[in-house]
Amino acid sequence: MKSLHQLARRQALTGLAMPRVLCSQNIAASRTWQRAFSASTAAASQLPDLDASKLTITKTTTPKEPMDSKDLVFGKYFTDHMLSVEWTATDGWHAPRIVPYQNLSLDPATCVFHYAFECFEGMKAYKDSTGGIRLFRPNKNMERLNKSSARIALPTVDGDALTKIIGEFVKLDSRFIPDARGYSLYLRPTMIGTQKTLGVGPPGSALLYVIASPVGPYYPTGFKAISLEATDYAVRAWPGGVGDKKLGANYAPCILPQLEAASRGFQQNLWLFGEEEYVTEVGTMNLFIALKNKETGQKELITAPLDGTILEGVTRDSVLTLARERLGPKGWNISERKIRMSEVAEASEEGRLIEVFGAGTAAIVSPVRNISYRGKMVECGLKEDEEAGEIALQMKNWIEGIQYGDEKNPWSVVI
Amino acid sequence: MKSLHQLARRQALTGLAMPRVLCSQNIAASRTWQRAFSASTAAASQLPDLDASKLTITKTTTPKEPMDSKDLVFGKYFTDHMLSVEWTATDGWHAPRIVPYQNLSLDPATCVFHYAFECFEGMKAYKDSTGGIRLFRPNKNMERLNKSSARIALPTVDGDALTKIIGEFVKLDSRFIPDARGYSLYLRPTMIGTQKTLGVGPPGSALLYVIASPVGPYYPTGFKAISLEATDYAVRAWPGGVGDKKLGANYAPCILPQLEAASRGFQQNLWLFGEEEYVTEVGTMNLFIALKNKETGQKELITAPLDGTILEGVTRDSVLTLARERLGPKGWNISERKIRMSEVAEASEEGRLIEVFGAGTAAIVSPVRNISYRGKMVECGLKEDEEAGEIALQMKNWIEGIQYGDEKNPWSVVI
Repeated sequence: MKSLHQLARRQALTGLAMPRVLCSQNIAASRTWQRAFSASTAAASQLPDLDASKLTITKTTTPKEPMDSKDLVFGKYFTDHMLSVEWTATDGWHAPRIVPYQNLSLDPATCVFHYAFECFEGMKAYKDSTGGIRLFRPNKNMERLNKSSARIALPTVDGDALTKIIGEFVKLDSRFIPDARGYSLYLRPTMIGTQKTLGVGPPGSALLYVIASPVGPYYPTGFKAISLEATDYAVRAWPGGVGDKKLGANYAPCILPQLEAASRGFQQNLWLFGEEEYVTEVGTMNLFIALKNKETGQKELITAPLDGTILEGVTRDSVLTLARERLGPKGWNISERKIRMSEVAEASEEGRLIEVFGAGTAAIVSPVRNISYRGKMVECGLKEDEEAGEIALQMKNWIEGIQYGDEKNPWSVVI
Repeated sequence: MKSLHQLARRQALTGLAMPRVLCSQNIAASRTWQRAFSASTAAASQLPDLDASKLTITKTTTPKEPMDSKDLVFGKYFTDHMLSVEWTATDGWHAPRIVPYQNLSLDPATCVFHYAFECFEGMKAYKDSTGGIRLFRPNKNMERLNKSSARIALPTVDGDALTKIIGEFVKLDSRFIPDARGYSLYLRPTMIGTQKTLGVGPPGSALLYVIASPVGPYYPTGFKAISLEATDYAVRAWPGGVGDKKLGANYAPCILPQLEAASRGFQQNLWLFGEEEYVTEVGTMNLFIALKNKETGQKELITAPLDGTILEGVTRDSVLTLARERLGPKGWNISERKIRMSEVAEASEEGRLIEVFGAGTAAIVSPVRNISYRGKMVECGLKEDEEAGEIALQMKNWIEGIQYGDEKNPWSVVI
C-alpha cells in the first residue's frame, strides 16, 4: 500500500491528482493516505465514496419568491435549498442530503477557520430555449475540485456522482433560473475541513456543500472594456506553490493589491511574475493576448502555460479548444507560452497588438482596453468607440451558444 | 484622506502596518481604507475601536470539570467560555462579549469558507508560583495580528484593549490552567471575515474570537530531538507573498509535504528556498543554527532574516534578544542572515555545527538531531545520548523562567 500512498501524495503535489471519473485507482489511493494519517484503522479500500442513490431531500417549508432578474447581484441571493455531504476519515462519504438553505453550525476550533482547509468551484446551470436545464463541462469542475482538495489533504470524491446530485439539486430549485439569455444559476461547490482541533494536520472530517445563486449577464448593457494595472510588488502565485488550485488560500491575499489598483481607477490587477515580468493572470480570470507575431507576422492567440502558477480555468480550456478548432484553420497560431509584459507593450507600440481579454466563468470573456505598466498606458487594440475585439466577441458567442444549447455539443450536459 | 488610505494599504503590503498601541494614526488610516471599499458612508475617523469597558460576561450554566493534566492534547479541549467581538464596516468594533463556548452559526456563503479571510495568533497564559496569571509579550501578538489582518483586508484592532479583555477571559476560566511548570493555557485569537456574499472583495464584516485550550509541556518526559527533511519540491513562501503573516492561507498547503516527510520518518519539513537552497523555517517554527564561522572561527547563532518569507515569531524575537544580551558578551555573534543548506551540511562535515533548534510558542525550543538533505543525513551536533544542545536548553530555561515569573522581566505581564 505504501507505494500507492506515495503515488497519490506525489500526484497531488505535482498537480497530477485525477478525479475518479478519470482514474479510480488514484482516488482510492488518495483516500488511503487520508486515512493513513487520520484516526481511523479500517481498511481504506472499503471506505464508501459518494453514492448518489442515497440522496435524501428535505424540502423547505418556507419557499422564497425568486428575485426580480434586474435586481440580481452576483453571489448575494441564494435558492431555497443547498446540497450537503459529510465525510469522515473513518466512514468515507456519508449519504448526500438536499436540505433547506441554512447556516452551518461549527465549533470555533474547526480547522477551516484556522488553517484554510477550503477549496471551491464555480460553475453554472443554464435554461435552454426548450426549458431544458444544462451544465457546461461539469467534468472539468469535478476534476479540478479533486485536484484542489487533494492538494490540501481534503478527500476526493466521485465526480460523476457529485454531478448527478448537483443535477438533482438544480432541478429542485430550477424555478430560480431566469430563462433569458445571459442569465444562469451560479453553482458554488465548496469543501471545508471540519475537524475541531487546533493541531496542524490532515483533517479527519470534511463537509462538501453546494449553494446556488441566480445571476444575470456580467455586462447587462453590452461589453464594457476594462483597464488593468500591471502588478509587480505583490505576487499571486509561485512555482512549487498552489496558485494553480482553486483554494481559498489564493484569494484573500489578492484583495489588498486589488484595492490598490481600484484606488487608481483600475478594475483588476494583471499579475506579473519574476524579473522577466511574465504575464500570468488578471484578477480572477485567465488572460488571452491576440497579436501579430514579431518574427513571422502570423496572428497568434497567447495565454500563459499551466506551469503550476496559473489557474486551470474551464473557460481558458474552452477558449483554447475552440480557437484551435475554429481559428487555427483561418491561419491563427494558438499558443500556451510565457510572454513578457515588455513584449505586450512592444506589440502595442508597433501596432501588432490585436486584442486582449480575460476569460472566466463569470463573464466568459472580459475585453481589456488598456494596461498600466511602468507609468505608461499600454493600449490593447480597441478603437475608442469599441468595447470588445472580434475574437472576444466570437468566443462569447461560440461558448454561450453551446452553454444555452443552441449549438449541439458534448460540452453541454442536459440534466 | 486619500494619502492616508494609500499609506495604510502600502504599509500592509510591505509588512509595516502597526497596531494602534504603536501608531494610532496608521490604525485610523487602516480603518479608513477598510471603509472606503466597503458599504459604509460614515466618516472613518468616527468608527469605534474596541472598547474594553463595554465587555459583557455571560457565564455558562453547565461548567465543565477541567481535564486531568496527563490527558491533555494540544488544542483538543477548551475552557467553559470564549471571547467574541463583531466588527462591521458601518459600525466598527461592537461591544466585546464573553459567552459560553459555543458553535459559530454562519451562512454557507460566508467569505471565510471561500476566500480564506482568516488569521490567528498563538499565545499562552501561565500560572506563577504565587498563583498569579501571566501573559508573555502579548503586545507582540497584537502587533502581528494587526499586520496579518490588514494584509487580507480585515480590520485592525486596539491591541491594548484586546489584551485587557483577553486578560478578563483568562481570569474567568483560570481554573483550567494547570499550576505546574510546563503547563499553560494556550490562547487562540482568531479573526474571520463574515460577509455572506460570493463576490471577491474586502469583507464588510468580521468576527474576532478567542478560545482557550489547557496544554501540557511539549516534551513531558524531557527533550526529544527531532529529524527534519529538507524540502525543495514544494515552496511555503515567496518574496511578494504572505509567508510572513499568520494567515490560515499559509497552513493548509503545507500539510501534504508534511505527510510526505512523515511517511519517511521525519517529524517536520525544513523549507528550503530558491536555487541557493536557503534555510527558511521548519514546519511551524523558526529555525536557529549554532555553528563556528568558517572564516573567523567565532561562534555564531544564525536565523533567517525577516525578508517577507519568514514568520515573525515571538519566540524567534525572544531568542534573538536574549542571545544578544546574554550570549553576545560571551563571544557569540548573533546573526539574522541567509544561510544555504549546503553551508549547514559543510559545517556539519567539518565538525563546526554546534547545534540546531526550532523556536515557537508550542515547545519554546525544539532541538534537531539531523536533517535529510539530498539523500544524506546532516548530523546537527548532538551526541548520540543527547536530546538537546546547550543553547537550546539555556534558552528554554531563560524564556520559561520569564514566562512563569521566576525572573522579573517586563516581557511577563501579570493580568
